[in-house]
Amino acid sequence: MLSTNNDSVGESTIRLMTRLANEYKALNLSQGVPSESPPWDMRLKLAWGVLNGMPLESASLEKKLLQNELVELIQNGPSGKLDQINQYSPPMGRADLRSAISEYYKRFYQYDVSPDEITVTLGATEAFASALRTLGRPGDNCVIIEPFHELYPNQCKIFYLQPVFVSLKATGSEWILDANELEEALKDAKMLLLNSPHNPTGKVFSRDELKAIVDLCLKHDVYIVTDEIYEHMCFDGTSHYVIPKEFPEIADRTLVCNSLGKSASATGWRLGWCLHPPHVSDTYRGIHDQMTVMSPHPVQYAAMHYFTLPDEFFQGLCRKYKERVRKLEGVLASVGFGIVSPQGAYYLFVDYTEVEKLNGKSCLEAAMYLLKEVGVACVPGDNFYGTIASKQAARHLRFAACRSPEDLDEATRRIQQHLGR
Amino acid sequence: MLSTNNDSVGESTIRLMTRLANEYKALNLSQGVPSESPPWDMRLKLAWGVLNGMPLESASLEKKLLQNELVELIQNGPSGKLDQINQYSPPMGRADLRSAISEYYKRFYQYDVSPDEITVTLGATEAFASALRTLGRPGDNCVIIEPFHELYPNQCKIFYLQPVFVSLKATGSEWILDANELEEALKDAKMLLLNSPHNPTGKVFSRDELKAIVDLCLKHDVYIVTDEIYEHMCFDGTSHYVIPKEFPEIADRTLVCNSLGKSASATGWRLGWCLHPPHVSDTYRGIHDQMTVMSPHPVQYAAMHYFTLPDEFFQGLCRKYKERVRKLEGVLASVGFGIVSPQGAYYLFVDYTEVEKLNGKSCLEAAMYLLKEVGVACVPGDNFYGTIASKQAARHLRFAACRSPEDLDEATRRIQQHLGR
Ligand SMILES: Cc1ncc(COP(=O)(O)O)c(C=O)c1O
Ligand SMILES: Cc1ncc(COP(=O)(O)O)c(C=O)c1O
Repeated sequence: MLSTNNDSVGESTIRLMTRLANEYKALNLSQGVPSESPPWDMRLKLAWGVLNGMPLESASLEKKLLQNELVELIQNGPSGKLDQINQYSPPMGRADLRSAISEYYKRFYQYDVSPDEITVTLGATEAFASALRTLGRPGDNCVIIEPFHELYPNQCKIFYLQPVFVSLKATGSEWILDANELEEALKDAKMLLLNSPHNPTGKVFSRDELKAIVDLCLKHDVYIVTDEIYEHMCFDGTSHYVIPKEFPEIADRTLVCNSLGKSASATGWRLGWCLHPPHVSDTYRGIHDQMTVMSPHPVQYAAMHYFTLPDEFFQGLCRKYKERVRKLEGVLASVGFGIVSPQGAYYLFVDYTEVEKLNGKSCLEAAMYLLKEVGVACVPGDNFYGTIASKQAARHLRFAACRSPEDLDEATRRIQQHLGR
Repeated sequence: MLSTNNDSVGESTIRLMTRLANEYKALNLSQGVPSESPPWDMRLKLAWGVLNGMPLESASLEKKLLQNELVELIQNGPSGKLDQINQYSPPMGRADLRSAISEYYKRFYQYDVSPDEITVTLGATEAFASALRTLGRPGDNCVIIEPFHELYPNQCKIFYLQPVFVSLKATGSEWILDANELEEALKDAKMLLLNSPHNPTGKVFSRDELKAIVDLCLKHDVYIVTDEIYEHMCFDGTSHYVIPKEFPEIADRTLVCNSLGKSASATGWRLGWCLHPPHVSDTYRGIHDQMTVMSPHPVQYAAMHYFTLPDEFFQGLCRKYKERVRKLEGVLASVGFGIVSPQGAYYLFVDYTEVEKLNGKSCLEAAMYLLKEVGVACVPGDNFYGTIASKQAARHLRFAACRSPEDLDEATRRIQQHLGR
């Protein structure tokens, strides 16, 4: 029989909590999935691509495409018999889409990145997997910052890499990484996995913090793989920095992973991308191609629209999620949760030791209490830690504040009622 | 710097030929990509799901959904504010889709497979990758039958598996696998990778051949991973057999990979699936989830329609591709290519040694001659072989007959004109 014990990659705990939320009819603040739809025009574009099979002739027509044209298409059928958009695209992504991504980096970061150094992937998840396999060899050390998104250590298992954990520590108003601990870990490492704005803490790494990390990675010849899917959610004057732009000295050792899942409220579309330095482009694209071929072509076609959305769209997104985070934060604080105020993303990672009804419980027990007695699903905090000791020490729960205002209202009502003092 | 020499996974040669075809404006018979669109109703379904964000209330309404409803939706906007279809689905796939796949196996093969043993994947490619990682450990031998689809040895590289090649030999009217050679290879193997109907030869393995293979795998404790994406293209009375149904004795050691890419003319949608025995389900789903999360949700929603298409659709598909294969076969034979007549799929894998203008050339030289002088792109046959010796011995070219009748007409005209005797 097959032995899978020593490297089993189980069901995601976050998605398990989603299943339990449905089972117990609890409000689901566990998974970080938006309740709203992607922008209407992006959806019209996807519908057009799938139904017509071919793109519009000119870029200017593409821009003006309206509902009327789509209605006509549905009533009259497509003009030609050939199909491109429902078939394979180049595995690295449509050329016009990669150009649109390149333009987007110019617009937001004044970063000049060639479409040859951009590969379109199946979400940030696959972008990350292909990055790990491109850089790592079995046994290589990968430094992961605790608390972390579970995909990092799980992908390490899949590719036989060795996770080495360093911890963010909550010090009153901040989550802080100890420079000595980090340097110790980097000494024998192949790469560092970095995520800012950070899930689950909401930390946005400052330029100084990033600079210190970059210097240590340069000193010890370590690659950086970043996960930037919350890039547009930086609150109160914090900023997002794209490492290879901000620190060109490490550009040739940095892979940037991203996705429109969260920013376009399209987690189900599976469209992400990776920026990779030229010397790994061929390997990266080969692995991506042979493992998955490509991101769905109709989604690629529609995604071009996302990268040209006006600045106001992205500002509105940030404002919306900040409001929801602050609202939930206020209520959680009022019933006794210990909170380091998030600077970005849309999660709250909170300490429950001072909440009377949760005190003394393990993370899982606390989460199950909230699920069954309060009717709110969240994620047990030990899920974000990697060693037995750090898992046992964990006293946090993660709540996702990205849900609809109605759900958040009802969740905060339940929390106040059941846990209020 | 990064060393990638010893296990590089390069750009797909097939997709390279597609790029060259565009560059040289040659007719592209290299990549096996249909030129037609997916069925109109499937496309309407996808458009509906993306635009409405939520499925229709009842299954019976779902069936009657017509163009009018979609036009109304576009004009009036969606009824509610919630969104499901553009967001994450359960990573293993929507429950209703997995039920539809289960029903489909009952309809076509009288095979009773539980939705718990079905995972929806990102095409057959990712289904296969997750299967290899589920079963294999670094260094494990994987038996691959030459000629093969390049994804098999490349995925072995990605997961550090050791390919062991056995060869189909052309013996006049058939491609034959030598039982002794196969048994020798299976002796130390973890798994056998099997593909029927077969790309590139068009061989459809008979029930007797499969039985012999299954017996050897049982004898040597070897898993079977099958790739069945051409299942509906079996010509002239040949049949497709699903191993775990036909040979229940090996059901708990067989993983079946498939996709609607070819049968629904939707290669760009990235929807496949894997049937896995219960004892590997958790591992399989964990790997699939952590590597890619899931197949795009809107595509999953639309795919339900595919599995309920009437039998006539699948028969028509088979007839259409058989006609195209036979037509191209006739012309290639008339100019001197050596052909073992395909029993299925939609490729021609032909020996060029008796074609005067190609005789003496390597596979690549022959393919480049066709590209530049004849204006037809095909794939050099050595691409389907794995050892230096077998690559050098290869004297074949692969043509894809799935292209439009217009393209095939023009391609055959050019072939007759330039290579005719
Ligand atoms: C930090 C982080 N990275 C990656 C992902 C997954 O991204 P995608 O859906 O684009 O694969 C998530 C989803 O929650 C996340 O929080
Ligand atoms: C034998 C075989 N398997 C798998 C694939 C890829 O399938 P998918 O597009 O579903 O990943 C192909 C595509 O040509 C193929 O010929």
